[in-house]
Amino acid sequence: MTTDHAKGRTAWYVPDAYIPPHSSGELESHESICVLNCMEEDASIAITVYFEDRDPIEHIEVTVPARRTRHIRTSSLAKDGQTIPVGVPYAFSLESSVPIVVQYSRLDATQPANALMTAIGYFG
Amino acid sequence: MTTDHAKGRTAWYVPDAYIPPHSSGELESHESICVLNCMEEDASIAITVYFEDRDPIEHIEVTVPARRTRHIRTSSLAKDGQTIPVGVPYAFSLESSVPIVVQYSRLDATQPANALMTAIGYFG
Amino acid sequence: MTTDHAKGRTAWYVPDAYIPPHSSGELESHESICVLNCMEEDASIAITVYFEDRDPIEHIEVTVPARRTRHIRTSSLAKDGQTIPVGVPYAFSLESSVPIVVQYSRLDATQPANALMTAIGYFG
Amino acid sequence: MTTDHAKGRTAWYVPDAYIPPHSSGELESHESICVLNCMEEDASIAITVYFEDRDPIEHIEVTVPARRTRHIRTSSLAKDGQTIPVGVPYAFSLESSVPIVVQYSRLDATQPANALMTAIGYFG
Repeated sequence: MTTDHAKGRTAWYVPDAYIPPHSSGELESHESICVLNCMEEDASIAITVYFEDRDPIEHIEVTVPARRTRHIRTSSLAKDGQTIPVGVPYAFSLESSVPIVVQYSRLDATQPANALMTAIGYFG
Repeated sequence: MTTDHAKGRTAWYVPDAYIPPHSSGELESHESICVLNCMEEDASIAITVYFEDRDPIEHIEVTVPARRTRHIRTSSLAKDGQTIPVGVPYAFSLESSVPIVVQYSRLDATQPANALMTAIGYFG
Repeated sequence: MTTDHAKGRTAWYVPDAYIPPHSSGELESHESICVLNCMEEDASIAITVYFEDRDPIEHIEVTVPARRTRHIRTSSLAKDGQTIPVGVPYAFSLESSVPIVVQYSRLDATQPANALMTAIGYFG
Repeated sequence: MTTDHAKGRTAWYVPDAYIPPHSSGELESHESICVLNCMEEDASIAITVYFEDRDPIEHIEVTVPARRTRHIRTSSLAKDGQTIPVGVPYAFSLESSVPIVVQYSRLDATQPANALMTAIGYFG
């Protein structure tokens, strides 16, 4: 048996995010923030987006229900009409009300032959 | 010399899993859950599969013998006739009777030119 | 609420670095050292580059402003006229004045169909 | 300033290793075990290779000099005439005399369009 604390962390960080501006071939370029919530309680999550040359977009709110996963497309994130621009290097953090696990993946379909990368985030 | 505890953990989590529905070219799209058991004892492992919109499939049982590795195809996992559907975002956790190390890899052969991604899981 | 320590570490290590010597197609082969600084203070960072067959290039200095990310092209790093040669296996470490998070990514465009890899660094 | 302990660990584990049997196009399929030794002392390393269906190959010895990196091709590893067969799933561990950092990368050039994956190992 594992403790609840063992099932995740409440703060996560991913430095290398980027929405590829182009797609070709069968699939569309995109990124996913994949969250796993193994707890018996819904996770209220605040995402902060960091840029190279301007202030962060803070506290974009998402929910992941108890005992569910969500693979969140970064292009769907919005706050007060602000979205993440394509073709711009950025980074993000998540703070959650309950322990979660976070993995970031990117599909780059700039060429018809797609490329994939993934990483479990850094946890605080 | 390292302690037994140092040779792995008993709880692992991977948020971004997905069986690509299509293959083309020479190789077949697939995912592997790669387990390393460095211990002198067999590992009895229970895999739980989490979805976005329905209850988890719990406690799919697999064994990895002492001092062996197993690269488990996710399409081979089944419990009470339930298998993991292709083309659906999911996540999974593993609980093991002895310390193990877990790495997840995906080969996407949607295009003839394949794409690879891998990550060591998060451990509790 | 998380403590400041939770927002990163001051020492990071990446063993597998390599600037691909060739590019073809639409994108250019490159590597990025992606740094996220969530702190309220600028990060003064010293990068040390390790080789297989000669002494390291020590203390290449970069700055990442408070509450910003920077995706640093490795080909832009220089010290006393020394740069990182293409086509040579190397590794690097970072030491920072404040906690940061570091992720390393490579785009290999040797073929017109590009390949991607990424990893969160090891932290000391 | 970081402590020596912060510069690495003495035990590392990688569950997903595999030498692709085929290559086509410009590059050759291969794997690298990338070691970074930031210490002032040479690292004496013992690699153990684990299989799915037979006993491990134990204590393949390699050295990484002080303040150097080495990107070791897995196809070069040998002990008593035994080498790692191509096209076979395997895993490996490293034990080192001094703290090191270990990253594993694979280039799959089965198709002319290559694919890349990488992960920092699990450390004990």
